[in-house]
Amino acid sequence: MSPHLSLLRNLPKYLRPSAPRSSIRPLGRALHGTSIAFAGHLPPRNAGFKKIEEQDRAFFRSILPEQAVRTSDLGPFNTDWMNKYHGKSDLVLFPRTTEQVSKILKHCNDNSIAVVPQGGNTGLVGGGVPVYDELILNMSAMNKIRHFDSASGVVVCDAGCILESLEETLGAEGFITPLDLGAKGSCHIGGNVATNAGGLRFLRYGSLHGSVMGLEVVTADGTILDNLSILHKDNTGYDLKQLFIGSEGTLGIITGVSIWTPPKPKSVKVALVGLDSFKNVQATYEKTKTHLNEILSAFEFWDKESLKLVLSHSIQGTRDPFDDQYPFYVLIETHGSNAEHDDAKLQGLLEDLMEGGEVVDGVVAQDESQSQSLWGLRESIPEACSKAGAVYKYDVSMPQSVLYQLVEDMREHMRSKGALGSKVTDVIGYGHVGDGNLHLNISAPKYTDEVQSLIEPFVYEWIQGHRGSISAEHGLGVMKGAVLPYSKSPEMIGYMRKIKEAFDPKGILNPYKYLPLTESK
Amino acid sequence: MSPHLSLLRNLPKYLRPSAPRSSIRPLGRALHGTSIAFAGHLPPRNAGFKKIEEQDRAFFRSILPEQAVRTSDLGPFNTDWMNKYHGKSDLVLFPRTTEQVSKILKHCNDNSIAVVPQGGNTGLVGGGVPVYDELILNMSAMNKIRHFDSASGVVVCDAGCILESLEETLGAEGFITPLDLGAKGSCHIGGNVATNAGGLRFLRYGSLHGSVMGLEVVTADGTILDNLSILHKDNTGYDLKQLFIGSEGTLGIITGVSIWTPPKPKSVKVALVGLDSFKNVQATYEKTKTHLNEILSAFEFWDKESLKLVLSHSIQGTRDPFDDQYPFYVLIETHGSNAEHDDAKLQGLLEDLMEGGEVVDGVVAQDESQSQSLWGLRESIPEACSKAGAVYKYDVSMPQSVLYQLVEDMREHMRSKGALGSKVTDVIGYGHVGDGNLHLNISAPKYTDEVQSLIEPFVYEWIQGHRGSISAEHGLGVMKGAVLPYSKSPEMIGYMRKIKEAFDPKGILNPYKYLPLTESK
Repeated sequence: MSPHLSLLRNLPKYLRPSAPRSSIRPLGRALHGTSIAFAGHLPPRNAGFKKIEEQDRAFFRSILPEQAVRTSDLGPFNTDWMNKYHGKSDLVLFPRTTEQVSKILKHCNDNSIAVVPQGGNTGLVGGGVPVYDELILNMSAMNKIRHFDSASGVVVCDAGCILESLEETLGAEGFITPLDLGAKGSCHIGGNVATNAGGLRFLRYGSLHGSVMGLEVVTADGTILDNLSILHKDNTGYDLKQLFIGSEGTLGIITGVSIWTPPKPKSVKVALVGLDSFKNVQATYEKTKTHLNEILSAFEFWDKESLKLVLSHSIQGTRDPFDDQYPFYVLIETHGSNAEHDDAKLQGLLEDLMEGGEVVDGVVAQDESQSQSLWGLRESIPEACSKAGAVYKYDVSMPQSVLYQLVEDMREHMRSKGALGSKVTDVIGYGHVGDGNLHLNISAPKYTDEVQSLIEPFVYEWIQGHRGSISAEHGLGVMKGAVLPYSKSPEMIGYMRKIKEAFDPKGILNPYKYLPLTESK
Repeated sequence: MSPHLSLLRNLPKYLRPSAPRSSIRPLGRALHGTSIAFAGHLPPRNAGFKKIEEQDRAFFRSILPEQAVRTSDLGPFNTDWMNKYHGKSDLVLFPRTTEQVSKILKHCNDNSIAVVPQGGNTGLVGGGVPVYDELILNMSAMNKIRHFDSASGVVVCDAGCILESLEETLGAEGFITPLDLGAKGSCHIGGNVATNAGGLRFLRYGSLHGSVMGLEVVTADGTILDNLSILHKDNTGYDLKQLFIGSEGTLGIITGVSIWTPPKPKSVKVALVGLDSFKNVQATYEKTKTHLNEILSAFEFWDKESLKLVLSHSIQGTRDPFDDQYPFYVLIETHGSNAEHDDAKLQGLLEDLMEGGEVVDGVVAQDESQSQSLWGLRESIPEACSKAGAVYKYDVSMPQSVLYQLVEDMREHMRSKGALGSKVTDVIGYGHVGDGNLHLNISAPKYTDEVQSLIEPFVYEWIQGHRGSISAEHGLGVMKGAVLPYSKSPEMIGYMRKIKEAFDPKGILNPYKYLPLTESK
């Protein structure tokens, strides 16, 4: 054991979390009341869509229970949880069954009524709220677990199941959900699938494209697609469910999800290390993969500017576990089946890193409470960013070798424009190194068109130049539909339009979003 | 250590493999010369397709090198490697570049020339050979590795790279391919993706829907879709690449593949256990998941009838490692990063299994040669089946609880019809327990319509009744297109047709296959 490696055996009380991890919410409630311009992308209301009339409401009342048709106090459904995107719908429906969803959509399609599907409303790109007066189809009343098979680990459930509830039910059976998000207390599994959520366990349990076994979907004309397979292998035709994963409700409404769940790890370890360069973050990732390999479940990094923000706002009572500050921090988590083996692997890694000089200092959590404290530092960053006044958030992915260069280049760009330290408070970077996923946040005293125009299109051009993606895990929604061409070719977008046309020829599902708008729609 | 557990420390020489594992080919060359009827599904040639003329050949010669246009000695390209499916094409093209593929397809689409894309021609359902006179677009000349990034483990390569060559190149970098097949010495990575190959590492490294990062595809009209992303996370629009995975060349021709590769395991262990019931196979799988969890890479089973066939034909010099015979055998493999830890976990499992009585006997390979010998027993089963005379092969998946019931029910069905022991030699079962994937093989002295009609539709109805899939990993091709409705609803098939229409409106790509035929096509 290297003498430089301090251990958290007696972690001070201040590092104990004040709230369980699951209640930590991502991104700033502090944004409340602040509205961000849609950068000129928002089109006028499509006059082809019928305005909902009394006869439509009467139809919906005829097929749904009374409390499933809501026409007043719709503020929370018209507004995303950041209070950034605002719709004007005057009807929210809460279907209980797939058949009800089918009848609703058939009526809407027959009458050209636009529909926005809504899950837990925790999205970050405005995909789950109306742009104008679209009917809101809220899935929260479809929240039953239908079936669980412990032999295969496959659970089949309604789309409106809250991720955390699902995790709790699975936990009693000795399993966990393959994804974990800060928003898990509110988000729906159906919404997770519809947005292809990534999150904190992606490195270990992979993409939803691999873990979702089947879906039940209702398409625009009310057709029910029963593809709720529980099979790991099924090569019978085009894998249609894959299209709905990440389609953000534009092709159909997911009503049921069949998903593989991993066994609950018997041992979970968390370590935090301090490093002096991003090059060493990369070198540390290389060594971590070698030592931890099959038990590695998370490799998260943040820069000193991120930590400074967290500490200056004393989020969740967080405190720096180190005496000194370091340019970079990395949180390493393992999920394994044998605590003794996992300990040995983690110790081996940390000794190798200290001896090799890749890390300068490190701490290892000794119990779940300490683990939560270290995770708390990571999970407090979004909230801390928002407290700085205004924050411009970009969720991007790119080859790991240039992952942090975007932050440095953006900082230099702002400096060269004379904005850093005045119009822009700070440029910070954090995210999922193993997934090549950077969260670039630019904090400022307030939202201004000037700052916006300093960031865009600079950030998108940079990402395009480095063959990155302008949306790693947050999706497109209303925020990024127009800038899709920075990541996808005209040919790709052309075929996407054909897909949309095949599933939703009238374009009633989640309009004004996702794809760049054409003249006609 | 239980005294009942024999160890292979001094594995006899006869158990050493006579050939490296990679050279073991699946399924019977012995089928050579035997032709199986298409069960009446084969439609007449579509008169809408133009017959290839001299002016077409001249065009192809004008855009391709001389040796890339082949018009004679086309037997090997017209016939699948089982010699079961036979086409009559008189033109094979070997494009070198994606642009050449694009020009070829544009010409074919403009002139309504039907095309069959061909990889290593190792498929089992007739998907890679022409039915009539379709132009064969063979991808073997596109076989370069374009890029490898050790930080992310993502390799980008031409579609025509042979899986084994890819594995060798990656091996030198410390990585492995995420899939492994008996046919790896011939099959192409592009063909693996086009057929969504499963194989022997599926349990550990998952589906290609999770591991393929991006594809380069040329659609029917010659459009090049550059979706060759190297990013683990990319939520920018519909994930079109997913549609091509498992589409068997009916939507476009894959020319490039970007795929995540796992690090080469530092430690590989193989054990073989004998069991007295399939219930105990299931119980063993449960315990195996608990003990081995993150290091488990394969859990393969076969029944005593399978082993009897292998031993009676002395395939590859295989011999029974046990003194006694058991109703079932399970091969367990681990991929891990620490040999000591992996040993301890495996020993813990085996002791638990012996004490719990789930397994009756077991052996553990002590080196790679012994591991290959144990794998040899499993991999010799397909070849042994084919040596019995004729073999009817079904690759199906279903919930694990009924996995072996199909074998027992089929045996009873044959017995009740008075066929077992005469028209039918034996009914055997083996496969991937962890994936719910059964290979049901019915051996017979010869192929007859009578035996065929005893098997079908019995087998498909049984699978449908148990919510299984009529094709787990082999795909549909020309063999199973017509029976797709046993696994997919009319609504699902309806949307599949719309997808086909969007990508290949003239239907020139791999016709007569995959989807049930309609009146018009």
